[in-house]
Amino acid sequence: MKIYLLPTLLFTLLFSSVSISQNTVQDSTMLKKLYTAALTDGKAYDWLDYLSNQIGGRLSGSFEAENAVKYTEEEMNQLGLDKVWLQPVMVPKWTRGFKEYAYIESPTGEKSVTDICALGGSVATPSLGIKAEVVEVNGLDELAALGKEKLSGKIVFYNRPMQADLILTFEAYGGCVDQRYAGAAEAAKYGALGVIVRSMNLKQDDYPHTGAMSYGDTPVSQRIPAAAISTNGADYLSSLLKLQPNLLFYFKQNCKTFDDVQSYNVIGEITGSINPNEYFVVGGHLDSWDLADGSHDDGAGCVQSMEVLRLFKKVGYKPKHTIRVVLFMNEENGLRGGTKYAEEVKRKGEKHLFALESDAGGFTPRGFSFQTNDTNLKKAQSWGSLFKPYLIHSFEKGHGGSDIGPLEGNIEVIAGLRPDSQRYFDYHHAANDTFDAVNKRELELGAATMASLVYLFDTYGTK
Amino acid sequence: MKIYLLPTLLFTLLFSSVSISQNTVQDSTMLKKLYTAALTDGKAYDWLDYLSNQIGGRLSGSFEAENAVKYTEEEMNQLGLDKVWLQPVMVPKWTRGFKEYAYIESPTGEKSVTDICALGGSVATPSLGIKAEVVEVNGLDELAALGKEKLSGKIVFYNRPMQADLILTFEAYGGCVDQRYAGAAEAAKYGALGVIVRSMNLKQDDYPHTGAMSYGDTPVSQRIPAAAISTNGADYLSSLLKLQPNLLFYFKQNCKTFDDVQSYNVIGEITGSINPNEYFVVGGHLDSWDLADGSHDDGAGCVQSMEVLRLFKKVGYKPKHTIRVVLFMNEENGLRGGTKYAEEVKRKGEKHLFALESDAGGFTPRGFSFQTNDTNLKKAQSWGSLFKPYLIHSFEKGHGGSDIGPLEGNIEVIAGLRPDSQRYFDYHHAANDTFDAVNKRELELGAATMASLVYLFDTYGTK
Repeated sequence: MKIYLLPTLLFTLLFSSVSISQNTVQDSTMLKKLYTAALTDGKAYDWLDYLSNQIGGRLSGSFEAENAVKYTEEEMNQLGLDKVWLQPVMVPKWTRGFKEYAYIESPTGEKSVTDICALGGSVATPSLGIKAEVVEVNGLDELAALGKEKLSGKIVFYNRPMQADLILTFEAYGGCVDQRYAGAAEAAKYGALGVIVRSMNLKQDDYPHTGAMSYGDTPVSQRIPAAAISTNGADYLSSLLKLQPNLLFYFKQNCKTFDDVQSYNVIGEITGSINPNEYFVVGGHLDSWDLADGSHDDGAGCVQSMEVLRLFKKVGYKPKHTIRVVLFMNEENGLRGGTKYAEEVKRKGEKHLFALESDAGGFTPRGFSFQTNDTNLKKAQSWGSLFKPYLIHSFEKGHGGSDIGPLEGNIEVIAGLRPDSQRYFDYHHAANDTFDAVNKRELELGAATMASLVYLFDTYGTK
Repeated sequence: MKIYLLPTLLFTLLFSSVSISQNTVQDSTMLKKLYTAALTDGKAYDWLDYLSNQIGGRLSGSFEAENAVKYTEEEMNQLGLDKVWLQPVMVPKWTRGFKEYAYIESPTGEKSVTDICALGGSVATPSLGIKAEVVEVNGLDELAALGKEKLSGKIVFYNRPMQADLILTFEAYGGCVDQRYAGAAEAAKYGALGVIVRSMNLKQDDYPHTGAMSYGDTPVSQRIPAAAISTNGADYLSSLLKLQPNLLFYFKQNCKTFDDVQSYNVIGEITGSINPNEYFVVGGHLDSWDLADGSHDDGAGCVQSMEVLRLFKKVGYKPKHTIRVVLFMNEENGLRGGTKYAEEVKRKGEKHLFALESDAGGFTPRGFSFQTNDTNLKKAQSWGSLFKPYLIHSFEKGHGGSDIGPLEGNIEVIAGLRPDSQRYFDYHHAANDTFDAVNKRELELGAATMASLVYLFDTYGTK
């Protein structure tokens, strides 16, 4: 059985020597302080309570979004940061309007009401709604095969489910979301009247999930309305269609797109003690969808990011580099905040070394994904033993975060917090993404995990 | 930066050679099959739905517990196992009786009702209840210092909270549960009239959490009643006591212990193809507390264990050793099922090699804890790369499971599934441990993870 003992022993010995050269004791003491402060004297959960329960859903351009800007700016001011400011950015304003209404009508005229929600960015239906036969498809590919003859005048029903056997649920999302994002633009090409999309949800339940869609270059006059139906609703509709292929689907929605309006990224920073002109960013997005509080998406990421800076002050850590918290506006339906921030970085020639986003829910943190070179990745992986007591085990290449994505090419490390993803899509963009769905400890562990990575890269630098 | 590269490289190379010698391709294919079957065609969630919503809380000796015996025996029979049977075991029968009632009375006579629940095994209060002044203590140690003079005729209020900065919540539980288990026996020595114990819960909420207590060798005539109060209730009582140290606490409960009654462990097995007389056990406990459905504790573990055998049949895996599922009766307040099973193993001289229990909730699995020698532990750790795609990363020494504990000394490997523990004590032994608190995917991932470990030890043997 020596074969099992040998590598582990070597591994331990070799990593021990690495660790010693990195002031393991000092680092593990700092991580312990950060985790203890987050878990015993944290502020993230209270902030999230306010954002979720006192302010609510924060769709770009809404009163709530502006309220959230004001609130988080005030809270950052109270943290005693070296600088707090608002970065202006113009954002789209889309409103859902009155509650959507839909029903399925059998060939014999029976109607059964089903819950839907307009996709973000969709046009309204005509004021009397749309009623048409339904063509169920498994995705965009199937449209061309069906052609204009079969699709013209119909409602296209995209019903490809998320793939349940993918362990990382974001991969399952990535495999389906084209139906939501481009489904209407594609169906319009074949003369469809509207589209209904199965919700991006791995759970069978009754919540329709909204989310961004785009008409691409579809002329305004040819844009057709798009709505989501719950997973239960989709299965019901699909099973009915097998019995009654010529049933009718009716839906009505009166969403509307207004002119862009003024909004803001909310930014605060602790000035670096040694390299004040080299920047680290930690952030989430302050906007959310309108169906719920946006507690997981992405209230959690915002309060965790603010907590990183509060924790540093709390434990008396003075970062070498300037550490910025950025609460980005308009991730959900435009990415204007992230784009604007990166533009300003470039315009001002600010040297950015590191950015970390939390936008995958306030669940138990498991690790990080990195867009960086191998040197920085290996460096992060070498900290595995420091993170092990906190059950942080995953340091992989992968998507960092939408809002910090535009910094790519102009920064050393882009990283994303990777919490447990199993429950994320149960709540994502749906009416149940509320404060009670967030566990306090899980949220706090995420904040401490972020603070720990920022501390380590601040201490040992990026390459 | 070579210092970072070197150990990882060596580690990879060395482990690769181990892996190759273990038929990595065959093993990873089998794990993929098991996880896919669990996630796309699982049965565990449906079973749990029935156990939780059709049967309900399964306290030993209750109608529901016997119903659960019957149901799981029937379901096992339908799986086409080689043998299914009931193993008789006598279990204690304790009943809660009418809903408990409690209030806090201020010195000026104002009463404020507070929710409590009797601890399992507690005696009743006198029929008119108990009303007395309260002495708050931080744990058992404080009693001796206070002595009979300060405690006689009082209600002792144990209020040491679970330690929030322990990452493994079971450690925080271990640091507090003596108050619940032995609090009444200890306080009785000093003439206290009753005890109220802060719930073993890391969350601030209104649920009192029950759980086992023991009077040890306290004579029957000196036994005093014990109840739990919620974390919110405990904080409220504690803050009131600072303002009004002579407030009164009233409580009334009419729980009762009956004579032992007949019950059963439910057992099913697939006969080993090569070593039919060498046994592997996978199990959970079928009994639960009575305040809720016991969905996490331990309906989840039962259905996951049954699912392990179903998955083997489903993917066509014929184990070398005999694989038994054992649903143990009476873990919560007696451990009679686990004790009986181990006695019978000894009596029959059955050679047991491996036992795995799931009794830490149906949350996302993170790994296993092992009571075994270093050789078996290292072997399990060498399978880390096979488990990595499923985010299983923790293979540590530690407690396997209460029900399989009595097998120790007579078995090679005792293992416990270790799911994410952050939310476990939010539900543990409380009225919210219900079906809706269990996520289908998380439950299924646990079952597949258990099946994978059983497969690997069955294939490569224990030493």
